[in-house]
Amino acid sequence: MLLEQIDSPKDLKQLPAAQLPALAQEIRQVLLNKVSVTGGHVGPNLGVVELTIAFHRVFDSPTDKVVWDVSHQSYPHKILTGRKQAWLDPAHYEDVSGFTAPEESPHDFFTIGHTSTSIGLATGMALARDHRHEPGNIVAVIGDGSLSGGLAFEALNNAAVLAHNLIIVVNDNGMSIAENHGGLYANLKLLRDTNGQAELNFFKAMGLDYRYEPNGNDVAAMTAAFTAVKDTDHPVVLHVHTEKGLGYAPAVADKEQWHWHVPFDLATAQPLRPRTGVSYLGLIRAQLAARIAAHNAPIYAINAAIPGSFGLKDFAAQYPERYIDVGIAEQESITLAAGMAQQGLRPVVFHSGTFLQRAYDQLSHDLGINRLPAVLILTGGAVSGGDPTHQGTFDIPMLANIPNLTYLTPTTQEELTAQLDWALTQTAGPVAIRVPAHGVQSAPLDPAFAPLTPHVLHQGQTVALLALGSMLPTAQTVATQLLAHGIDATLVDPRSANAWQAADLLPLGTAHRLIVTLEEGSLDGGFGQKVAALFGPTATRVLPFGAKRQFNARETTQALLQRDQLTPDLITTAILAQL
Amino acid sequence: MLLEQIDSPKDLKQLPAAQLPALAQEIRQVLLNKVSVTGGHVGPNLGVVELTIAFHRVFDSPTDKVVWDVSHQSYPHKILTGRKQAWLDPAHYEDVSGFTAPEESPHDFFTIGHTSTSIGLATGMALARDHRHEPGNIVAVIGDGSLSGGLAFEALNNAAVLAHNLIIVVNDNGMSIAENHGGLYANLKLLRDTNGQAELNFFKAMGLDYRYEPNGNDVAAMTAAFTAVKDTDHPVVLHVHTEKGLGYAPAVADKEQWHWHVPFDLATAQPLRPRTGVSYLGLIRAQLAARIAAHNAPIYAINAAIPGSFGLKDFAAQYPERYIDVGIAEQESITLAAGMAQQGLRPVVFHSGTFLQRAYDQLSHDLGINRLPAVLILTGGAVSGGDPTHQGTFDIPMLANIPNLTYLTPTTQEELTAQLDWALTQTAGPVAIRVPAHGVQSAPLDPAFAPLTPHVLHQGQTVALLALGSMLPTAQTVATQLLAHGIDATLVDPRSANAWQAADLLPLGTAHRLIVTLEEGSLDGGFGQKVAALFGPTATRVLPFGAKRQFNARETTQALLQRDQLTPDLITTAILAQL
Repeated sequence: MLLEQIDSPKDLKQLPAAQLPALAQEIRQVLLNKVSVTGGHVGPNLGVVELTIAFHRVFDSPTDKVVWDVSHQSYPHKILTGRKQAWLDPAHYEDVSGFTAPEESPHDFFTIGHTSTSIGLATGMALARDHRHEPGNIVAVIGDGSLSGGLAFEALNNAAVLAHNLIIVVNDNGMSIAENHGGLYANLKLLRDTNGQAELNFFKAMGLDYRYEPNGNDVAAMTAAFTAVKDTDHPVVLHVHTEKGLGYAPAVADKEQWHWHVPFDLATAQPLRPRTGVSYLGLIRAQLAARIAAHNAPIYAINAAIPGSFGLKDFAAQYPERYIDVGIAEQESITLAAGMAQQGLRPVVFHSGTFLQRAYDQLSHDLGINRLPAVLILTGGAVSGGDPTHQGTFDIPMLANIPNLTYLTPTTQEELTAQLDWALTQTAGPVAIRVPAHGVQSAPLDPAFAPLTPHVLHQGQTVALLALGSMLPTAQTVATQLLAHGIDATLVDPRSANAWQAADLLPLGTAHRLIVTLEEGSLDGGFGQKVAALFGPTATRVLPFGAKRQFNARETTQALLQRDQLTPDLITTAILAQL
Repeated sequence: MLLEQIDSPKDLKQLPAAQLPALAQEIRQVLLNKVSVTGGHVGPNLGVVELTIAFHRVFDSPTDKVVWDVSHQSYPHKILTGRKQAWLDPAHYEDVSGFTAPEESPHDFFTIGHTSTSIGLATGMALARDHRHEPGNIVAVIGDGSLSGGLAFEALNNAAVLAHNLIIVVNDNGMSIAENHGGLYANLKLLRDTNGQAELNFFKAMGLDYRYEPNGNDVAAMTAAFTAVKDTDHPVVLHVHTEKGLGYAPAVADKEQWHWHVPFDLATAQPLRPRTGVSYLGLIRAQLAARIAAHNAPIYAINAAIPGSFGLKDFAAQYPERYIDVGIAEQESITLAAGMAQQGLRPVVFHSGTFLQRAYDQLSHDLGINRLPAVLILTGGAVSGGDPTHQGTFDIPMLANIPNLTYLTPTTQEELTAQLDWALTQTAGPVAIRVPAHGVQSAPLDPAFAPLTPHVLHQGQTVALLALGSMLPTAQTVATQLLAHGIDATLVDPRSANAWQAADLLPLGTAHRLIVTLEEGSLDGGFGQKVAALFGPTATRVLPFGAKRQFNARETTQALLQRDQLTPDLITTAILAQL
């Protein structure tokens, strides 16, 4: 095996060029071996194998520095920079993260998991190199999809005038379709179709030098292309055509499905543990479709380039004219929705909380100030293990402190349905719904249901448990444990992180010595701190449970719940100690 | 006076075309009359007088709908749509806001004050029009400066494929200089220089139809240009060359200085109330310069298109190679700084808190997760009257809940200097400094100073006042008032919104019955709620004072302080009632 000889880019440079296609084949095989077991990004990594080999042949990393955009395509880079064991040996599969990680290697510079940052980061690094009058190339590798993010544009605009040596590799896998992603992609196609010769050139219009390489999956061609731009004294875009998923037929045939994939059987390409059954997102999609069918409600489903995450492909097939994918453009998803809502449409914008961070200003300035009744469906709000770049504990601090914005936290499918019905018809302002992160719960809606009014599920005494959204099952277990200690705790579903009134909760203070808040989210800026402030001037004590203000370090979910004292046992113990 | 006849666009359409230049002259005069008294945006409004007249001659507002980007150039639009009294009669000067305002007129659709939103909003409106199969034109007017914001790019990219009729007016005043703003501006210049005929065309590369009009300050030319694109069945960019400040020589001569201006003498162009004396920003600039001079510290000052707000022109003149203006590109300002800091430079990024909202994800994902020691200088963090689009109460919820990010809140120039010195040398992560919004305070630094440790200014009993940043003078007044009631309150400067340790504050609980927190910022997600949660499980009561979760409605600062119970008298009364 050629990989056995390669522990660093230096080793790679020793290989005869004739052996590089075989090396690429080996890398593809070990990529597939591991990802079929662990799950992960398939297509992006298969597509850049040759590009990565060529990079490490031509450049001298880490003196020459590469920044991988999103960094979900950095597996071949990791394999070639001393981390191959994490692909060769199943016992070491978990040794490395799925993204670049400075703590793993001097060849990585940033922990990255969001898109469109590479050009700005690389420009900053180029400025530092120039400040020290050092040699070396700075390279950003960005996919065509990530180019639609406004940050990439802002950075291109600055790179053109700020940097000296800077190489921006646009890894264009040609799968973008103009109708799906925007006007820029017609130009990328024109450039591909003309072998980079078209007069009309987005990159040149941005003031950048430009070079096209059609054979991005040919090591020799990529080596020549990198050699041609190496040591450039000005910023240059190297536009490269690669094939996403190359080397695994199913990943080539359905590029979106295989961008990221759960563990699968290599031979059949079938998931090892297929998902089945009802889901909250499925219920939401069905409810939107039903309202369109029954009332021709002016509902539009919007998302930013990840329809698969929300199962929106089915909705799009059913109501193509009611479906919008803005590309990787979270800001635009909200501002567009603001324009639609102002004119009477009812946009429903699907987002993963971590990516919605890109649109914080739009949520406040465009939707909040203007009280526009767009609806947001938020996923990923939870304590969950894994990378800090996708951490799910910041959505409540981000959303719940914006005036006029209501952040709902349903606990069951019945409550979700009723709250969504209300969100789709009210006109007071934007409403976000936190999709519970755990399995679907079901319970009859209480007869006195009101979408913004906390619901007392059980009236006890001494202790009141206020369990937000997905924390309700935990609170129920805690209540059972407390009962074994002779404490009949009151159980409350607040129904929202921020829309309850003081008058709804203050009466709890007279009947209970202790109010306990439970949330799967950051304590800082979250629900529990609001409750603590509400009762601050009173004699009632408040004990808030939630996530620490801390980025995860690839712990497991269970380890995080232990750390943050969010397991039923730890909560019960803390409550008993407090009484 | 021609304006006497015009109460609506319909009236405007009755005027003979030959009288329109005279009308433009009148509008310029009343604009200058008012703005010289009240202050406001000068150049942007003088530049679009003819464009606005032509718009309302050609189109039928509000059936045809215009969205003004930022909307600081909407004064002529307001004058022509029934609101002229707010310019003609000094008694009515305050009747209208400085931005579009739906509550004022059916010709306005959004409250807007941040840049680069108009294209996305207009696209959403166009979708709504198409949904209802209605006629009508949707027009966005965006300045060349606002084009550098990533949101504008995301929206252009989507407009090209989403909309039918959509007219994007690029109001290009030609004052942009490539070196200052980025590569895009060389293309705008090329287009101006070639009368729009250059093959290399950014807008066409984005998939948009394009038309150029060189005479944007000629009503007849603009009327013809608008007529040519009216009722287009597809998105079109109308690139218009106007002169910013036209009609007032000083504003033409120094376009940046006269973008927005304080009240001034029309004849001499001198400010009526010149600012003098020391300022916190002046101290910061001097400190940065001194560190560069003394130690060649790798400090770079960065800002996003508003150097005048921070007095950075002087710094730029002194250290041109250490000064970066990224254009209106808040996201890039932070991501670029992340790249620089990772490579050992010390970027110092100046922002107004309200505009930094655009970079929330970059603060968290790029700086926070990677613990990069960039320094942020934040202005505008305060309770202050005026428009909700520039409200200064959200910076603490935005910044103080991000892990690894330290948000410092100095109270005096000595503390600011000492904390900035620390921020410029530490390597633990990003540090933001909230520049106190009020006049410069001075007091000797306590000998035990540590940048992150709360400082007990006075040790009393019963009540402890924790006064964040600019609230210290208020707290001192409250302490004096309490003393008159026999209460010797403890006074504490927490020194940061989020970097104190529980162990620093918890001892206050044993010595005091009541902890009072004071902050010029949102209660929700802010400092006081953290303190309330800290003492939640204890017997100590906490009474937090801060701004309500509410957008301002153009109240005065004093009215807001009254509403939020933030005046010394109201605070003292509330404390006495609590005891």
